Amino acid sequence: MIRVGIYGYGNLGKGIECAIRQNADMELAAVFTRRDPSTVSILTPNVPVYASADAVAHKDEIDVLVICGGSATDLPVQTPELAKNFNVIDSFDTHANIPTHFANVDAAAKESGHTALISAGWDPGMFSLNRLYANCILPNGNDYTFWGKGVSQGHSDAIRRVKGVKNGKQYTIPVPEALDAVRAGQNPELTTRQKHTRECFVVAEEGADLAQIEHDIKTMPNYFADYDTTIHFITEEELIRDHSGIPHGGFVFRSGKTGWDNEDNVIIEYSLKLDSNPSFTASVIAAYARAVARLASEGVSGCKTVFDVAPSYLSPLSGEELRAHLL
Amino acid sequence: MIRVGIYGYGNLGKGIECAIRQNADMELAAVFTRRDPSTVSILTPNVPVYASADAVAHKDEIDVLVICGGSATDLPVQTPELAKNFNVIDSFDTHANIPTHFANVDAAAKESGHTALISAGWDPGMFSLNRLYANCILPNGNDYTFWGKGVSQGHSDAIRRVKGVKNGKQYTIPVPEALDAVRAGQNPELTTRQKHTRECFVVAEEGADLAQIEHDIKTMPNYFADYDTTIHFITEEELIRDHSGIPHGGFVFRSGKTGWDNEDNVIIEYSLKLDSNPSFTASVIAAYARAVARLASEGVSGCKTVFDVAPSYLSPLSGEELRAHLL
Repeated sequence: MIRVGIYGYGNLGKGIECAIRQNADMELAAVFTRRDPSTVSILTPNVPVYASADAVAHKDEIDVLVICGGSATDLPVQTPELAKNFNVIDSFDTHANIPTHFANVDAAAKESGHTALISAGWDPGMFSLNRLYANCILPNGNDYTFWGKGVSQGHSDAIRRVKGVKNGKQYTIPVPEALDAVRAGQNPELTTRQKHTRECFVVAEEGADLAQIEHDIKTMPNYFADYDTTIHFITEEELIRDHSGIPHGGFVFRSGKTGWDNEDNVIIEYSLKLDSNPSFTASVIAAYARAVARLASEGVSGCKTVFDVAPSYLSPLSGEELRAHLL
Repeated sequence: MIRVGIYGYGNLGKGIECAIRQNADMELAAVFTRRDPSTVSILTPNVPVYASADAVAHKDEIDVLVICGGSATDLPVQTPELAKNFNVIDSFDTHANIPTHFANVDAAAKESGHTALISAGWDPGMFSLNRLYANCILPNGNDYTFWGKGVSQGHSDAIRRVKGVKNGKQYTIPVPEALDAVRAGQNPELTTRQKHTRECFVVAEEGADLAQIEHDIKTMPNYFADYDTTIHFITEEELIRDHSGIPHGGFVFRSGKTGWDNEDNVIIEYSLKLDSNPSFTASVIAAYARAVARLASEGVSGCKTVFDVAPSYLSPLSGEELRAHLL
């Protein structure tokens, strides 16, 4: 049994707990929280909840620690620090800062002799893997990544900061014509506006100026100004009833050429349709936690990413079973 | 530079030659043929063509030998035999016989200290990888694989053996309603007939009994009897004009559940749309040939499959470059 610890019990931490339940070779050993542990009740019976400050005292009870903090300020500190005492995995998703995060985690894990894996999930994660495989197979081609339809937490937060807005949710939606053009092998050059639209469901405060809210959202730099944005004003009840989920997904394409004179077209498409973004991210992390446990048992130390892990390490099945049933 | 040899110069061998041209770190070192080498002209200038019987004499000129024989009778003999003197890769695709082939190649490669990789391509190959990744991420779910629209060589051959048939081509086509049901998360149980249809373009001999041909094809056991089959009689000119290509492709789905009570649906879909089946298979093999060369340079011996190779081994880029640009 692989004994998994969860460090941080929000949406992602709960998702890890659910994923462990689906994997017969894993068990939840402990949850660590920054809150008062006595106030945190988890789904799994008979599993202790500890204060995160006490984590190191429990290091011998944990084979892999899943760190469920945020990428902005939590993980850059937590993952290198915890790699001093644990085999660790995180879902660090600030693409531009991955090299720095990797270097910090790698140094800590190598020094302590632990195995670490960063940036597991779907983007970075499964989408990255699909970009890599497709680029290696088709050196001559174009990459396209589309996100959605799904809830963007960052854009939903941005809406809620607008004056007169009580609550809101934002969906990122790929433009169907852009998907069709890529699928047809047209290799289009797409602007930001041509790739995605943004749809907002907004609960206004009583007496707020709706036209002003609409203007403030649509012209917000970085978040909305470069997109075609639609705004629907709804009631708080409607928001709770119809928009409480956290669905997401997306598409990764490689549109490439084969043949002596590049005469043959290839379209590789990978897509995800997820009712729950954090649950799926957690399911990917659980599979890679198995790989981390195996690498650690082989004495591998330092930081890895999904690029460095042979696919068979994600599976509880033997090489013989995999070749007989999945190859 | 990775010096690649091609053993067998048919459609797949030519595809390997084209793929090498797209990869700046690879060069074609030699082609080996069972035909009289003086009768074989290849596309790449200044590359020798040798008799396959003389291959071993050239072993020091080759880093990886790509074996392009057929799975029925060629590869079971060729791959273990050549693994005695070369690092080898093949596209062995008789799924049921993979365990035996693996064992034979593994024994030969381990004894000689070479690296071998079998069953590279798209199915087995990229489709297998997608089945494995998706199964590891979603232990709770159903797999669906659809093939096409594309030319089935085996079914085209079967048509041509029917009395009164001069020539013919068969397309395997996924049933759109079945794809839609899977995409919608309905987890349908599909019969053979519900998954694929078969479309045949047949050139009849002069004076042949068309009704009899149609009957003989549609009732042919294993090949057509379990499918809805459509037959079009066309002229030889039309066949050559409209059906000379070897397109193929297909879809791999995993329809699974996440969440504490399996309350959240996930659909993972991977698809390929290929103008040329052998060119794409060759492009996958070329990427894995790079991995074989690297594994060999690390002293790894024995037989591997796509399941055993970390994705980064397929790329000419460094770990730093991959993390910075593709993760």
